[in-house]
Amino acid sequence: MEKATQQQTKAHNSQLVLKTIYDQGKVSRAEVARLTRLTRTTVSDAVTDLRTKGLVEEVGYGERARGKAPILLSVVNNSRHLIGVDLASDEFRGAVVNLRGQIIRAVAFPISSPSGEAALALAYKLIDTLLASSDGPVLGIGLGTPGLIDTEAGIVLQAVNLDWQGLPLSQLLTDRYHLPIHLVNDSQAAALAEYIFGGGHSRRNLAVIKVGQGIGAGLVLEGQLFVGDGSSAGEIGHLMVADNGLVCRCGHTGCLETVASAGAIIRRAQTLARGSKESPLSLLAPEAMTLEALGAALEANDPVARQVTAEAGQYLGRAVAMLVSTLNVQHVLLIGSITALGTPLLKVIQQETRRQALATLAEATKIQFGHFGLDAVTLGASALLLTHELGLSFAR
Amino acid sequence: MEKATQQQTKAHNSQLVLKTIYDQGKVSRAEVARLTRLTRTTVSDAVTDLRTKGLVEEVGYGERARGKAPILLSVVNNSRHLIGVDLASDEFRGAVVNLRGQIIRAVAFPISSPSGEAALALAYKLIDTLLASSDGPVLGIGLGTPGLIDTEAGIVLQAVNLDWQGLPLSQLLTDRYHLPIHLVNDSQAAALAEYIFGGGHSRRNLAVIKVGQGIGAGLVLEGQLFVGDGSSAGEIGHLMVADNGLVCRCGHTGCLETVASAGAIIRRAQTLARGSKESPLSLLAPEAMTLEALGAALEANDPVARQVTAEAGQYLGRAVAMLVSTLNVQHVLLIGSITALGTPLLKVIQQETRRQALATLAEATKIQFGHFGLDAVTLGASALLLTHELGLSFAR
Repeated sequence: MEKATQQQTKAHNSQLVLKTIYDQGKVSRAEVARLTRLTRTTVSDAVTDLRTKGLVEEVGYGERARGKAPILLSVVNNSRHLIGVDLASDEFRGAVVNLRGQIIRAVAFPISSPSGEAALALAYKLIDTLLASSDGPVLGIGLGTPGLIDTEAGIVLQAVNLDWQGLPLSQLLTDRYHLPIHLVNDSQAAALAEYIFGGGHSRRNLAVIKVGQGIGAGLVLEGQLFVGDGSSAGEIGHLMVADNGLVCRCGHTGCLETVASAGAIIRRAQTLARGSKESPLSLLAPEAMTLEALGAALEANDPVARQVTAEAGQYLGRAVAMLVSTLNVQHVLLIGSITALGTPLLKVIQQETRRQALATLAEATKIQFGHFGLDAVTLGASALLLTHELGLSFAR
Repeated sequence: MEKATQQQTKAHNSQLVLKTIYDQGKVSRAEVARLTRLTRTTVSDAVTDLRTKGLVEEVGYGERARGKAPILLSVVNNSRHLIGVDLASDEFRGAVVNLRGQIIRAVAFPISSPSGEAALALAYKLIDTLLASSDGPVLGIGLGTPGLIDTEAGIVLQAVNLDWQGLPLSQLLTDRYHLPIHLVNDSQAAALAEYIFGGGHSRRNLAVIKVGQGIGAGLVLEGQLFVGDGSSAGEIGHLMVADNGLVCRCGHTGCLETVASAGAIIRRAQTLARGSKESPLSLLAPEAMTLEALGAALEANDPVARQVTAEAGQYLGRAVAMLVSTLNVQHVLLIGSITALGTPLLKVIQQETRRQALATLAEATKIQFGHFGLDAVTLGASALLLTHELGLSFAR
């Protein structure tokens, strides 16, 4: 073998050993050899390498099988820091995260008037702040951005709310920070966070639907983030769902976003409230009509709040029915500002999914809210670094 | 290392070497070592093993780089036979296929009155006939069946047209034939055939929509057949697409099958023809209304044929838009009896996809008819054996 190949093999073995220790929590060298099918010598060499790098440590003794009790190995959770960034439409959020997705420091900057240049400057300021607050070696920077992304090239093809078009964000950040940069769509990042750090996913597949200003989905299939041929898997917000529907900002009519995004729901509630004699929501100033106000009204069984929830839930149920029918994914999570509508919304979506997809498929599917609230994209963006920089993949 | 582990490693290396030779066509041992990152000794041992089994042969000399010209290796395409079976609703088809998907012998039996027992007896007869006609070692039997399948357990959960419910087909066939048995949904099998043997798929993702009596999709994602958590990925025929639609055999209303399956299109054409004064189709006896007749009428620009094509195409376009939006898959193939409607149908579907999905995603997607006609499921079912029995996977 040539030398380059030997080094590749060694790096590959090290990654495999690291992944095994990460997945197992605490594990002996012998057990790692058994699980990886590598020889004990190869495992020992890899462990020495990982200990030298500070990624792995010895943490005591396991149960003795025969002879000596084996030394247990564990990943040093704080040995590397991950920078995760969520370039959301309303504010930029970021966090310093450890190898287990624990947030060490979180920062958020509101966006006042987002123009392309100002948004970029704000992103720099956010990352500068996070890097300054990290006291450990940083593995890289992961970013989740709304809109269409070319993941491989690291280019934001189109992010309407940030006024970015064809922005080579990865290159700009590499030049400025000299760190590995990874960029994905925000819904895709959120799906990765829920899958890797959310726990409780016994299945290998997970769909996450993010409903806020926009609507997008993220897919983890066979334990890996799936982005499709053009990096845009999950762009369901502009799927036509309403015949003779409203005009959407994309130029088409009847898109899912025109009937089920946060803005669409609020506008519909304002319209219905104006014509309602029964609903206390009719007394609200239009600008006080928020998803939180609607969520509170739902608890009081307000008729306007119930109707908008039923209407939006029907279309979101269609989106879930579509994911379930297409992918037979048995776990679907909803995240984003829409979760303010709470259990009543979830119930409508569950009912509508059963009505709009084959019953046996729908009944086998758990539909829930996600775990991470506002941190989902940040955590998912940082999780990208585990995959790309440490070679940890998460198929279970 | 323990002995079992050594043998596993050896088998794993042999598979990797076989796959590399299969993918490359003709290749030297040195090149295999480079591509697999295995040592030359390991590759030589694996090649000896594969030649002993008759799977690989030496086929002459390659170009000399330095010193001696290298001996080239190739897979012996006819060294194993695959039995592929398509348990379609109207007839059972099967073929003896070689390792490159070339059909050596094909057989078809029409189904007269399908009851559960009779259908099973006919399947036995078909497989008996195929095995009797094969003169080589048989790697196993792959089957594609309409309906819901538990792929892992090898059970047909529900195949309405064959009157099968919870049938442990894999076990029955294993007991009878003592050969490896693999079972998938027919649309999934067809997708695998188009991906592996269809050529021209530069992308790692492919969606195939089969429209005949039923409607189903098959997905190849990242080079692998994707079946989802419950083996039923692609069950899009019972997704609700029409509000206030017709009642479907599944019990719901407005399913895709009620507006775009072969039967739905023919019934709609019969209805429209009855009321039409301009269409020559109104002169047809109802039982003469077939997709072929509609295809011919389309060429003559018949108004009834045009209308049913526009209507069905709108819903099939919605199905494609859904696949494109969800998966950002850039290659979608249509197969099944619907292809009798030809280019006019394809054009409507292409237009509707652009209208119903985000323009940039739709424009990047090729939508075509498949390559294999009636053989798609048979070939795909046989291709399952390449994956499961020879460890050939097809990510490119």
